[in-house]
Amino acid sequence: MNWDYAQPVAIRFGKGRATEVNDVAASMELHNGLLVTTPSFVRNGQAQRLVDASNGMLTTVFSQFSPNPDVTEVDACATAIKANGCEFVVALGGGSAMDLAKAAASICMVDESIAQYHGTDKTLPGEHLPLIALPTTAGTGSEVTCVSVLTNRALGKKAPIVSDGFYPSVAIVDPELTYSVPPYVTACTGMDVLSQAIEGFWSKGHQPICDACALHAAKLVFQYLLIAAAHHDDEATYIEAREKMCEASIIAGLAFTLPKTTSSHACSFPLTNLYGIPHGEACALTLDYFARINQDAQGGRVQEFARALGFANASAMADAIYKLKASLGLRTDLRDLSLGDEQIAELVRISRHPNLYNNPVEISDDMLDAMYRSLAGIG
Amino acid sequence: MNWDYAQPVAIRFGKGRATEVNDVAASMELHNGLLVTTPSFVRNGQAQRLVDASNGMLTTVFSQFSPNPDVTEVDACATAIKANGCEFVVALGGGSAMDLAKAAASICMVDESIAQYHGTDKTLPGEHLPLIALPTTAGTGSEVTCVSVLTNRALGKKAPIVSDGFYPSVAIVDPELTYSVPPYVTACTGMDVLSQAIEGFWSKGHQPICDACALHAAKLVFQYLLIAAAHHDDEATYIEAREKMCEASIIAGLAFTLPKTTSSHACSFPLTNLYGIPHGEACALTLDYFARINQDAQGGRVQEFARALGFANASAMADAIYKLKASLGLRTDLRDLSLGDEQIAELVRISRHPNLYNNPVEISDDMLDAMYRSLAGIG
Repeated sequence: MNWDYAQPVAIRFGKGRATEVNDVAASMELHNGLLVTTPSFVRNGQAQRLVDASNGMLTTVFSQFSPNPDVTEVDACATAIKANGCEFVVALGGGSAMDLAKAAASICMVDESIAQYHGTDKTLPGEHLPLIALPTTAGTGSEVTCVSVLTNRALGKKAPIVSDGFYPSVAIVDPELTYSVPPYVTACTGMDVLSQAIEGFWSKGHQPICDACALHAAKLVFQYLLIAAAHHDDEATYIEAREKMCEASIIAGLAFTLPKTTSSHACSFPLTNLYGIPHGEACALTLDYFARINQDAQGGRVQEFARALGFANASAMADAIYKLKASLGLRTDLRDLSLGDEQIAELVRISRHPNLYNNPVEISDDMLDAMYRSLAGIG
Repeated sequence: MNWDYAQPVAIRFGKGRATEVNDVAASMELHNGLLVTTPSFVRNGQAQRLVDASNGMLTTVFSQFSPNPDVTEVDACATAIKANGCEFVVALGGGSAMDLAKAAASICMVDESIAQYHGTDKTLPGEHLPLIALPTTAGTGSEVTCVSVLTNRALGKKAPIVSDGFYPSVAIVDPELTYSVPPYVTACTGMDVLSQAIEGFWSKGHQPICDACALHAAKLVFQYLLIAAAHHDDEATYIEAREKMCEASIIAGLAFTLPKTTSSHACSFPLTNLYGIPHGEACALTLDYFARINQDAQGGRVQEFARALGFANASAMADAIYKLKASLGLRTDLRDLSLGDEQIAELVRISRHPNLYNNPVEISDDMLDAMYRSLAGIG
């Protein structure tokens, strides 16, 4: 079996290490940085704490962007980088802050709009400013990937841009940044982590180092997500669980970024775009279904994976995924949406995302139809 | 827990991919390379095959060095690089070819001898020529590390040099290069892989991504080494086993390079230097002993590791290591050496290598004394 592996992001992991932005920048002989962060981190003071800790290195803060960053917002950030003569970019936030920062750190090198590279065949130039990524959820894995998902509202288009220049130079994973994430968001993002790990493992593009990471990350999610997503009197247990979920998140990022995700991610997109179901919850909704579909694929690899996680077999792993969703208070069906034939057909149609073709078992429209009908509780 | 991770080497893995040297060099816009390889690969034609496949890119071959490369040989290689205006270096071989190539690709950038950086506090300049590493054993893991072990015969000194510039740019792992390795060498190098994985896991410097790699690599060794080290009528089985050992080797390289190895590696050095026991066999000799010593260290992590490998506990894993050595025809004791008190004392003394202090349990002279006496079969 042939495989290629590369993982150019250096990782610093540990509580309180967000303040090392300075140290990282200094080691790269950089002095003037722009901080990309969401309005909520400006409001709660976390952005200011990072600026204060930077000893004047973070000179500019950019937070004027939406949860699904628009190409015009990327361009505005690039303008701010150039206007302030910034030499590096720091992203503090979840997926959207990192998506915007990746694209801005590249497009600022040329006098063009990122829109020209969005959903087109045009390849971004390789040059880019160094990016330091600080994820605040566990998580998207975006801190170790070279993908930026952007929207062009003027054209009604949402699409990823992939560029080697989008890899952050350094990811600083500080579990303390996730302490304030509400339980429901922790549950959703945590199930995204599990989906990334499991789908990365069974993807047609699977490869050994990513397999090892997938197993490690999935094990942590089964062990710690329920604790991390709860409020606990026993604070140490809760803090440990949040840290372990951060570990799971970055290692799941390594697990899926090369093999790519598969069926559950493909099906998540219409569920999110049409019905507003958060990404991780939408992925999890079909994960146990596809675990059963895929259980005997690839000469028993999925069964072996389930056994390595401590389950009797892949079917027992699927049961555990279902139980975990239920325990977390996440959706286990779509009954409340009162879907009809037309909506089911639309879900089936839009689930034909490219990721669906990474699934080890070929997924027919009939299989999708049966799955969505079962989830919707209609015959 | 704080941890830092970086792994700058891009990996290409697969049968027949040795011929991709050209493609790798072209992708880096390099055209004139020097091949470092051992005299045996010159003799068996493998070096020439690589040169032929390079379409004139590999203009120079350097093979005048010993199994423990000397600093003067590194300098001679650097001279050859400069004399031929080479822009990159390719290493084809086991540990010694890679050790020499790493050092030569750095020292050729300055008008100095590598001796000035060998066992001294002086830091090598960062600049270096790109190195493409093709390991021919499974293995040393050297293709993903930034360490070069060199000898200065004039000063009677053997020591590692560590430099970020020693990381190969690309490792091409072509299992076909290992097909001609004799069973005994396969057994020895394979047990080195197992030692790297297990020691990387229990090292005081352990960290999650390396843990995941350690588990993956160790599992492969227990499953495939005995087949890889045998001559089989069923060629497909044998070829699969050799490929799996190559996978184990590079992933064990990732598992130990940051956490470092521990007690078994520390004890291997006197066994090799005083008694000529090959490195991997020397590591394996004490691996089961230290597995028992370390079995309850680090809050049960070693027990958990053993269970994840399918053993009942760490003690059962130690039994399996012993059994594997015996089945491979490797040493399980030192009885044939007729060691006396003086030799035992010398082994104990020289085992106090820095790696010994990475062991999770503090190893006293008494413990080493008891171990060596037991291995020697004396009271």
